[in-house]
Amino acid sequence: MTCRSNESLSKLVEEARPYAASGRVADYIPALGRAEKDDLSVAIFDIGNECYYAGDYKKKFTLQSISKVLALALALSDRGFDYVFSHVGMEPTGDPFNSISKLETSVPSKPLNPMINAGALAVTHMINGRDNKEKIDRIIRFVSSFLDGAPVTCNWETAQSEMETADLNRALCYFMKQHGIIEGDVEDLLRVYTAQCAIEMNCFDLARVGAVLALNGVDPETGKQIIAENVARICKTFMVTCGMYNASGEFAIKIGIPAKSGVSGGIMGAVPGRYGIGIFGPSLDEKGNSIAGMKILEMLAREQQLSIF
Amino acid sequence: MTCRSNESLSKLVEEARPYAASGRVADYIPALGRAEKDDLSVAIFDIGNECYYAGDYKKKFTLQSISKVLALALALSDRGFDYVFSHVGMEPTGDPFNSISKLETSVPSKPLNPMINAGALAVTHMINGRDNKEKIDRIIRFVSSFLDGAPVTCNWETAQSEMETADLNRALCYFMKQHGIIEGDVEDLLRVYTAQCAIEMNCFDLARVGAVLALNGVDPETGKQIIAENVARICKTFMVTCGMYNASGEFAIKIGIPAKSGVSGGIMGAVPGRYGIGIFGPSLDEKGNSIAGMKILEMLAREQQLSIF
Amino acid sequence: MTCRSNESLSKLVEEARPYAASGRVADYIPALGRAEKDDLSVAIFDIGNECYYAGDYKKKFTLQSISKVLALALALSDRGFDYVFSHVGMEPTGDPFNSISKLETSVPSKPLNPMINAGALAVTHMINGRDNKEKIDRIIRFVSSFLDGAPVTCNWETAQSEMETADLNRALCYFMKQHGIIEGDVEDLLRVYTAQCAIEMNCFDLARVGAVLALNGVDPETGKQIIAENVARICKTFMVTCGMYNASGEFAIKIGIPAKSGVSGGIMGAVPGRYGIGIFGPSLDEKGNSIAGMKILEMLAREQQLSIF
Amino acid sequence: MTCRSNESLSKLVEEARPYAASGRVADYIPALGRAEKDDLSVAIFDIGNECYYAGDYKKKFTLQSISKVLALALALSDRGFDYVFSHVGMEPTGDPFNSISKLETSVPSKPLNPMINAGALAVTHMINGRDNKEKIDRIIRFVSSFLDGAPVTCNWETAQSEMETADLNRALCYFMKQHGIIEGDVEDLLRVYTAQCAIEMNCFDLARVGAVLALNGVDPETGKQIIAENVARICKTFMVTCGMYNASGEFAIKIGIPAKSGVSGGIMGAVPGRYGIGIFGPSLDEKGNSIAGMKILEMLAREQQLSIF
Repeated sequence: MTCRSNESLSKLVEEARPYAASGRVADYIPALGRAEKDDLSVAIFDIGNECYYAGDYKKKFTLQSISKVLALALALSDRGFDYVFSHVGMEPTGDPFNSISKLETSVPSKPLNPMINAGALAVTHMINGRDNKEKIDRIIRFVSSFLDGAPVTCNWETAQSEMETADLNRALCYFMKQHGIIEGDVEDLLRVYTAQCAIEMNCFDLARVGAVLALNGVDPETGKQIIAENVARICKTFMVTCGMYNASGEFAIKIGIPAKSGVSGGIMGAVPGRYGIGIFGPSLDEKGNSIAGMKILEMLAREQQLSIF
Repeated sequence: MTCRSNESLSKLVEEARPYAASGRVADYIPALGRAEKDDLSVAIFDIGNECYYAGDYKKKFTLQSISKVLALALALSDRGFDYVFSHVGMEPTGDPFNSISKLETSVPSKPLNPMINAGALAVTHMINGRDNKEKIDRIIRFVSSFLDGAPVTCNWETAQSEMETADLNRALCYFMKQHGIIEGDVEDLLRVYTAQCAIEMNCFDLARVGAVLALNGVDPETGKQIIAENVARICKTFMVTCGMYNASGEFAIKIGIPAKSGVSGGIMGAVPGRYGIGIFGPSLDEKGNSIAGMKILEMLAREQQLSIF
Repeated sequence: MTCRSNESLSKLVEEARPYAASGRVADYIPALGRAEKDDLSVAIFDIGNECYYAGDYKKKFTLQSISKVLALALALSDRGFDYVFSHVGMEPTGDPFNSISKLETSVPSKPLNPMINAGALAVTHMINGRDNKEKIDRIIRFVSSFLDGAPVTCNWETAQSEMETADLNRALCYFMKQHGIIEGDVEDLLRVYTAQCAIEMNCFDLARVGAVLALNGVDPETGKQIIAENVARICKTFMVTCGMYNASGEFAIKIGIPAKSGVSGGIMGAVPGRYGIGIFGPSLDEKGNSIAGMKILEMLAREQQLSIF
Repeated sequence: MTCRSNESLSKLVEEARPYAASGRVADYIPALGRAEKDDLSVAIFDIGNECYYAGDYKKKFTLQSISKVLALALALSDRGFDYVFSHVGMEPTGDPFNSISKLETSVPSKPLNPMINAGALAVTHMINGRDNKEKIDRIIRFVSSFLDGAPVTCNWETAQSEMETADLNRALCYFMKQHGIIEGDVEDLLRVYTAQCAIEMNCFDLARVGAVLALNGVDPETGKQIIAENVARICKTFMVTCGMYNASGEFAIKIGIPAKSGVSGGIMGAVPGRYGIGIFGPSLDEKGNSIAGMKILEMLAREQQLSIF
C-alpha cells in the first residue's frame, strides 16, 4: 500500500512544528544528539486501508522505549500471561521511568510495570532464544512481521553508544538479579535490550505497527493475525496507563488514546478499530515526550474524537 | 424505567458469589462492619434503555470512594479544568490510596490524582458553597441530577463514624494546608467529605449514574446533558487509570472498563456508549475491591467484549 | 555565681560574627523574624565553677527545638526508659526533621528518634499531667530545676504564633494518632508542645542547663542530682547522633560534642565532664543551625580539644 | 606483648554465650555459614599496655564491614578530608546498610556516609593504587601497620564467594557510576572491596587495631603515630553514629562506645583513651550484629562506665 501526502495533515504538522522550539533533543549519545530539532513527520494508517502522511516521512529514527511494547508482545507470545506477570507487575507508577527506589520498597520486589526501564529489562529477559544473537534475530523478525515481512534494521552505532551509557540500566539489572527477577549475564541482556531499542523505522512503518495493535493483532492489509488479540489488548492497555512516561495520566485525560513514546522523539499511537499512527519529532519536553508530536495528537484527537473514554 | 430481573445475570451472580468467602468486610466503622459478606447484587443499565438486575438490588450501601468521581465532576463543573488541575495532578501512582509520602516527595507537593484520598480531599475542597451545609446540599443535588432528580440520602450515622476515625485524612489535610493546597477549617472540609462518602444508593441507582458517564454526560432516559462531555470523559479516564486502588493496572488489563470501587463493596462501571453498571458486594480483597464484584465484571467483560482497549 | 566577660571569648565572637551575613533569620512567625541577624552571644559554664561570656549575654531567645532534649529528660523521668522507647525510636535518620515519609514506611510506624518533630511530639505526649496547664507547669518547673530554681518564662506570643503555623505538626500528630502512638486531643498536645518550644532563656541560662548534662545530671554549683545519670547520658547521646538536624553527622565529625540547636538560633552544648555551653546567633544556615554559633563551636573545639571522640 | 587469659572476662563470656542461641549465622556464602553459632571470644587491649582475653582468642574471622573503618582511614590518608567528603556524606541514615533508595532521592546523589555499602564502595574507590593488585597490597600493608607490621592475610575463598553474590553491590556501583561518584571498571572495584572485607584476624589483633584508634592513631606499644589524629577521630565518630548498622542509635544509647560490627560476627571497639576491644561471635541478630558480642559490650560498659556520653 502506498501512503499519500495529505493536505490537512500537513497543516497540522505546520501548526505543531513551532512548539518544538521550546524542547530539547536528547543528547546523551551522539546518534540521538544529531537529530534536527524541528524535524516533524507523521503518518496515519487508517485500518480501512488508506494511509496519509505529512512531513519527511522517510526519515528513520530508532524506536527506543517504543520497543518496550513490542518486546512485551513477543514475551507474552513466548511465555504466556501468567509467567510474564509473575516477573513484572501491571500497575502504573508516579515514579520516573528509570527509578530504582520502588524496586526496593515493593514487596515482592518485581518491577511495577513493563513500560518502566526495570520492567522492560525483565520483559526482554523473558524473550526466548539460546543466546543474544538468536534473541535479537527473533525480535527483529517479530517486528518485521508487523510490516508484512519488510526488512527491519537495527542501528548498531546507536546500540553500541547506548551500551556505553547504560550504567543505570546495569544497576537496575543487578538489583533485579539479586532479587531473582532475572538471571544470567547482565551484559548479554543489555546487548539484547539496546539492540531492541535501536531498531529503526520511519513514521509510516510505525503507523503500520500501530494499526496492527488497533486491529487487535490483525494485519490491516493481509488480514493475517500477527499477534493474539489478548496480547494486542494488553499492549494497548499499558500504552494508556503508562505509555507516555510520567505524563501518561495527563495524556490519557487530554488525548485519550493508547500511545507509546521514545526518547528519539517517536510516538506510536493505536486508536482501537480505527488508526495506527506514527510520529517523529525529536524535540522533547521535560518528561521525555515529543512536544510537537503530542501537539499533533492533541489536535487530531479533538478534531476526530479519538479518545477511547 | 423499571429494572427487570435477568436470568443469565442471576447465573453470573451465583457463579461469583462463592468468591466472596475469601475476602473480608470492612469493619473500621460499625456501619460498614454490619454488612453481610455474601451479599451480592448487580444492575446493568443498557443505554439503549433497558435495565437488568440480579440479586437483592434494593439493598442500599454508601458510595465511599465511588463518590470521588462525582465530586470531581462537580468540582470541574464549578471551577473548570485549569483551576482544578492546578491543585491536583493527573498521574496514577503505585502508592496506596491513603499514602502521604508522595505528597512530601513530589514537587510541587500537590496530590498525584483525584482518586487517592489526598487528591479527593483537595477536590472536595474546591466545590463551591458558602459553608458546609451548602456544599453538602450541592453535592447531594448534583448526585440526584444523575438520577433524574430522584431523592438522594446520606447515611449520617456512617458519616459521623467516619469523622471519628478520620485521623489519617486529617493528617493529609493538614499536610496540604501547610503546603497551600487547601485552606480554611479542616474539620469543616472533613464534614463535607465524609457526608459525600456516606451518600447511599442501591445498585440500580449506581448503574444509572454509570450510564450517564457512559453516554458522555447525557441522561439515557431524558436525553438531558447532566454534565459536560469533557467532564464525563475525564471521569472515565481516571476510573481507568486509578479507579480500582492499587489494582487499577491489573483491572485495566483483565477487564478494561472505566470503574470505581468503594470500601463499602460498591463498584460503578461505565462502558463507553453501552452500559452503566452498579454492583454491591461488601467482601473485599486485600486491595480494597469487592471480590465477587470484580468476578462479575471479569465474566461480563469476557462474554460481551467490554474492554475499551 | 556570676558570669564574667572574657576577652579571648570575645575575640572568637568577633571572628565568628561576620559568618552570620550568609544566613537567614527564621521568619515564619513574626517573633522570630524580629531577631537581628548579627546578634551573637555565648556563655561557657565551666563545671569547675567558673563562667565566661561574650556578646550581649542578657538577650533572651526561645528554646524551640532545644526544648526537645529537656522534654525527653522529663518524659524519661516520668515514664522510664522502656515506656518511652516503646513509643519513639533511637535511630538517627537522613530525612529532614519535619519529614512524615519515614513514619509511613517504618514498621512499626513509630518516630525514628526524639529529636525529629514527630518524635518530639510523641515525647511531649508522654509527659505526666492531668491537663495542659499542669503539663506546661511541670515542664517549666523542670526547666527551672536546671537553673537552681530561678524563674523560667514562656513567650506566649511566640507560642500563639507557632500554634497558628503548626499545620505540619498537626499532620504528624494525626498520623501518629491514627497509628496509636499518641491519643487524645491534638490541639491540646500542640499547646503543650508550642509552650515548651517558647520557653525563654539567655545564653548563660542555657550554658547552665548544658553544664548539668555535662555533669551527668548534677548541678555544678549545688551538687544536687537534678536528673538521673542515665537520663543525662541518653540526652547527650541523642544530641550527638541527631542534635543538629541533618548536619548532625558533619557536626560530630568536625566538632564532636553533644549539642542541640533550635530555629531561634540557640545552641546548647554539653562537653562531658567539662563545660556547658549556651549560644545565641539567630542567622541560620540551610539546615537550620546558627551559622556563627557553629563557627564559635568549631573554633572552641579545635583550641580546647573538646571532641569526645 | 602477650595477651593473658582473664577470669572475670571469662565469666562475662560464659554469661553472654547463651544469648547466641537466639540468633543466626550468616550463610549467604559457604565460608561464613561454616561458623559455629556459639563461638565467642573477646580480647581487650588496655592502652596502659595490658591485654586480656577470654574464649578461643586464636580463632580467625574475616573483617567484613569492620574493614570499612580501615578503608576510610586509608582513603583519608591518601586523599584528604575535602576530597573524600566531596564523594561521600557524613550523615547517619535510618535506611538499611544496603539501601539504594537514598542514593536516588538525595541531591546530590552521593552516599550518605562511609559505613553503608554504597559509601564504603565509594571510599574504597578513592584508595590510591595503579591497579587492583596495588590497591589490595596497600590495604593489607595499611592494616598490618596497625599490628606493628605483623603479617595480615586475606581469605581468598571468602573474597571469591563474595564476588559471586555481590549483585546488590554491583547495582550500587553502577548507580554511582551513572552519577559520577565512581568511575572505571566496577568488577575491579568489587575485587578490591571483597578482598578488603575478607581480611582475616583474631580478636586480639582486632583489639589492637581498636587500641590504635582509641589512642588517636598512636600505637600503644611502640608509640608510633600510625594514622593522623584527625583521621582516628573521624573513624571513631562514624563508629558511633553509624557503626552498628540500623541499631547504631540504640547501641550509642545503651553502650555508648565507638564500635563497628561485621557480618562475620566481629565487633571492633575503641574506647577513647582506654581500650581497644576485639570480639568474635558469629551468631547475629536481625540487624546483623553479633548478639553475644553486644551482650559482652553491654556488661563491660556498665561495669566499667565506658560510655563516652
